[in-house]
Amino acid sequence: MFAPPVNRLITELARLPGIGQRTAQRLAFHLLRASEEEALALAEAIKEVKETVGLCEICFNLAVGPQCRICEDPRRESDVICVVEEPSDVIPVERTNEYHGRYHVLGGALSPIDGVDPEDLHIEELLTRVAAGGIGEVVIATNPTTTGEATALFIADGVRERAPTVTVTRLASGLPVGADLEYADEMTLGRAFRGRTSA
Amino acid sequence: MFAPPVNRLITELARLPGIGQRTAQRLAFHLLRASEEEALALAEAIKEVKETVGLCEICFNLAVGPQCRICEDPRRESDVICVVEEPSDVIPVERTNEYHGRYHVLGGALSPIDGVDPEDLHIEELLTRVAAGGIGEVVIATNPTTTGEATALFIADGVRERAPTVTVTRLASGLPVGADLEYADEMTLGRAFRGRTSA
Repeated sequence: MFAPPVNRLITELARLPGIGQRTAQRLAFHLLRASEEEALALAEAIKEVKETVGLCEICFNLAVGPQCRICEDPRRESDVICVVEEPSDVIPVERTNEYHGRYHVLGGALSPIDGVDPEDLHIEELLTRVAAGGIGEVVIATNPTTTGEATALFIADGVRERAPTVTVTRLASGLPVGADLEYADEMTLGRAFRGRTSA
Repeated sequence: MFAPPVNRLITELARLPGIGQRTAQRLAFHLLRASEEEALALAEAIKEVKETVGLCEICFNLAVGPQCRICEDPRRESDVICVVEEPSDVIPVERTNEYHGRYHVLGGALSPIDGVDPEDLHIEELLTRVAAGGIGEVVIATNPTTTGEATALFIADGVRERAPTVTVTRLASGLPVGADLEYADEMTLGRAFRGRTSA
């Protein structure tokens, strides 16, 4: 129905997550209407990101150059590693301003059903980092989902085996701030009970 | 918080309509994770569309080359012109398979508040087309909104003045198929009454 270049753009936009055919069409028409400058700025930004951004050789966070900005920062505590699933998980942790250590990005979570086994994630690299010494604590911050939990258990076991003196912790699980008991699901409420702290 | 190229990509993505900061971040991380090939295919599609797609010199629909595929198609009836606001409005009309004539894309709707005056739209070009002869009917298919209605009235007047023998029609307004009277708004229901047809 559209000219081939328009169809191609719609197809490419529709491959983005959460962007259906309709939205892709709307975005394509926006880009068609947009100034040459605005549209090409997006195209250039995509190219630039693919050309310049890679993974940190230490922690597998996003990095321009061999190491990410956190691994390069001498002010960050070097004896704590926070383990997250994806590079995008680093941001919310940073935003808390509660954490001043380093990271290790796994690149996903264990999920045998989807064919994600330990060797598909950067788990061995984490264990090597921890076993090399100088690490006091590993904070596991995988998602509180089935796959995230499985990954956390696997990593906790691995760290205990390779570096028995290192403390392994997990993020607390419980009621989110502002939640209402009445609407809390049983899983979350159960966790909140098990993890109750002295008032 | 992110590396500069990542920030730039997020900023550019967030300029798209309906894409907020959060979604832009999610899309950026998707593109970072995506294969080089997939991400660059999107960048290329944007560039290609801006380089190759322009507006039809006759009807201002999108066109690769000087004229759009509809104006170039000798099988389309050349004595009827359907007037729409945007190139994206051509698609739903085409999908009905009810219309076999040509189009005229205004490039928007009159909206003095937003500074859109008749000379900002392709209205003069439409009137010139109609006045040149060979046109039996102009079907105005602007949106049933305040600005679309105002535009329709303005165009109807213009056509009547410049080509008094040409029939000017508007799309019927009324209850959408599958609608429920109970939930219809008064405007729509009022239109449905005024436009009632013999059963």
